Amino acid sequence: MDKVAILGAGSWATALAVLLAGKGMQVSMWSRREDLARQIREAGENGRYLPGVAVPPEIQVTVDLPRVLERAGAVVCGVPSHAFRPVLRQALPLLPPGVMVINAAKGIEEDTLQPLSRVFTGEAGEDNAGRYVVLSGPSHAEEVGRGLPTAVVVAGRDPQTTGRAQELFMTPSFRVYTNPDVTGVELGGALKNIIALGTGIADGLGFGDNTRAALMTRGLAEITRLGMALGANPLTFAGLAGVGDLIVTCTSMHSRNRRAGMEIGRGKSLAEAVASVHMVVEGVRTTRAAYRLAARYRVEMPITEQIYRVLFEGLSPRAAVTNLMTRGRRHEMEEVAMAAALVRWQTGPRPG
Amino acid sequence: MDKVAILGAGSWATALAVLLAGKGMQVSMWSRREDLARQIREAGENGRYLPGVAVPPEIQVTVDLPRVLERAGAVVCGVPSHAFRPVLRQALPLLPPGVMVINAAKGIEEDTLQPLSRVFTGEAGEDNAGRYVVLSGPSHAEEVGRGLPTAVVVAGRDPQTTGRAQELFMTPSFRVYTNPDVTGVELGGALKNIIALGTGIADGLGFGDNTRAALMTRGLAEITRLGMALGANPLTFAGLAGVGDLIVTCTSMHSRNRRAGMEIGRGKSLAEAVASVHMVVEGVRTTRAAYRLAARYRVEMPITEQIYRVLFEGLSPRAAVTNLMTRGRRHEMEEVAMAAALVRWQTGPRPG
Repeated sequence: MDKVAILGAGSWATALAVLLAGKGMQVSMWSRREDLARQIREAGENGRYLPGVAVPPEIQVTVDLPRVLERAGAVVCGVPSHAFRPVLRQALPLLPPGVMVINAAKGIEEDTLQPLSRVFTGEAGEDNAGRYVVLSGPSHAEEVGRGLPTAVVVAGRDPQTTGRAQELFMTPSFRVYTNPDVTGVELGGALKNIIALGTGIADGLGFGDNTRAALMTRGLAEITRLGMALGANPLTFAGLAGVGDLIVTCTSMHSRNRRAGMEIGRGKSLAEAVASVHMVVEGVRTTRAAYRLAARYRVEMPITEQIYRVLFEGLSPRAAVTNLMTRGRRHEMEEVAMAAALVRWQTGPRPG
Repeated sequence: MDKVAILGAGSWATALAVLLAGKGMQVSMWSRREDLARQIREAGENGRYLPGVAVPPEIQVTVDLPRVLERAGAVVCGVPSHAFRPVLRQALPLLPPGVMVINAAKGIEEDTLQPLSRVFTGEAGEDNAGRYVVLSGPSHAEEVGRGLPTAVVVAGRDPQTTGRAQELFMTPSFRVYTNPDVTGVELGGALKNIIALGTGIADGLGFGDNTRAALMTRGLAEITRLGMALGANPLTFAGLAGVGDLIVTCTSMHSRNRRAGMEIGRGKSLAEAVASVHMVVEGVRTTRAAYRLAARYRVEMPITEQIYRVLFEGLSPRAAVTNLMTRGRRHEMEEVAMAAALVRWQTGPRPG
């Protein structure tokens, strides 16, 4: 591969750039903002988004998008999910045909309620679906930047392209698995941010590890239900992009969604909480999107609903927890329904 | 119900006694050791195993087993798993026929490799299988003692008895779900301790949240595989007794298994690590049992195998992590195999 273009200069984009440069690849990184690009070049680190991790001078950092994409053999997109479509629109015409696009962002486009793979085919055409690969899993940028052992998953419609993406990133401390379920991998990464907000709220209220684990478990069940309604394989939610990413996001202080939730649990408003985190809090948009999707597909999502009401309708966090603890249903899991859906998924035609 | 008998006076037994007494039930607690029973009675708290939680004087605490069991309408067994059979042998002849036995211990009997429900029917007879209910899920005793919101699951063969166990424990902050899969609920609670040892080892080595989440995710997959081989429903491992308990055990400092693992990761021997925790470390026995079961049922359990080698064969913790990060398999999940087994479970005769 000649060269890898990284779009975005946030913490995750920077960590992936450093990882690839460490494998001896030629890496060129695009920042929307000249001040950030200059700071990274001059300081040899991304002081704003990934302090303490050296960005070697071999990594080109520039606002010049055509220069970044020139002769790129692969494009890694690391911008927030709401910027995915506009950045893609700028980048696609500059790319040679067939170049793979690896998306590292996690979210659902809010206006269209589409996962980002659909945004990609909407912009690039259905013929190009095989060029798209999503990278997801439990991978805090700060730890990948420090070389700590990490396992992620890549998913794409074309097995050969997915395999190339796997080889691109694999190192002895960064283990890359493949999974054919693009929708499931994307939704796992996006929807887990809702539950991270919720567990943050519980933590901010002063509740304990038991409460957090219960919310995560029940939360995993409801995001799996929504995922299945959208055509995902439920088993993907038992994997790295599902429960793996949920675990890391709900238990780590690196997580912005969890930190924002904690501020809300302590009594701050949504606006104050988001401002205190200083970065994009994907879970806020995702809660709104999932709430609308749950209504559209008639999927029961009690935790998402309570978080939605806390974020956007002024429900007190404590009342939300009480609502969840005293619900009617008392049998664990909607097992029968879930198992039946799973069998349908294995044996019948897939929706979407 | 006239009275509830609690067998055992450890942290979990004490927390459940306090919970039931708080619901206004008559509670009688049996301790094997007179000094502990006296300390609890005199101090009004279990200073050794559950400090800071008041044990009200209405709770009878005694070494007199016949007195504890007299007129009991339910028995809660909260002894370590290796003590389950001998305690049961003492208690069963003293119980009126039909009294339900709720087991709150998590483990596999090491000599026989049996889950505790089988130990129960072995002692009480297959006719009495319906009297046995297992209580499991993410529930640190310390937090239940403080009244923090907690959700658990009870599983039994007889739905009516299981429902009575659910009503017995349910409070506004202690939510009890039911699940018919006794084997799955028991194995989830037992096997998660192996993974807690493993994540503790990784933490002790100085690895991060990404590493822990990867081990937990892949660990959940392998304990689900073993569970299926033993006749459990794989979906149970996606619930409170599976991933829920796994999360709380692998991320909380309350967990003895995790703390013992951390000491091993920092270079202590198994004996030193267990001694430093001052309580029974169930995961050590369970690792040995699961390792033997995996061989017997030909289930691939790479994480369990590496932990076994660290605990009992002197493999260095760092080498174990390297072995796991550089394994051959690169496709996420043994999805096809797992899904096929799941469909078989739903549609075919169950083993065991």
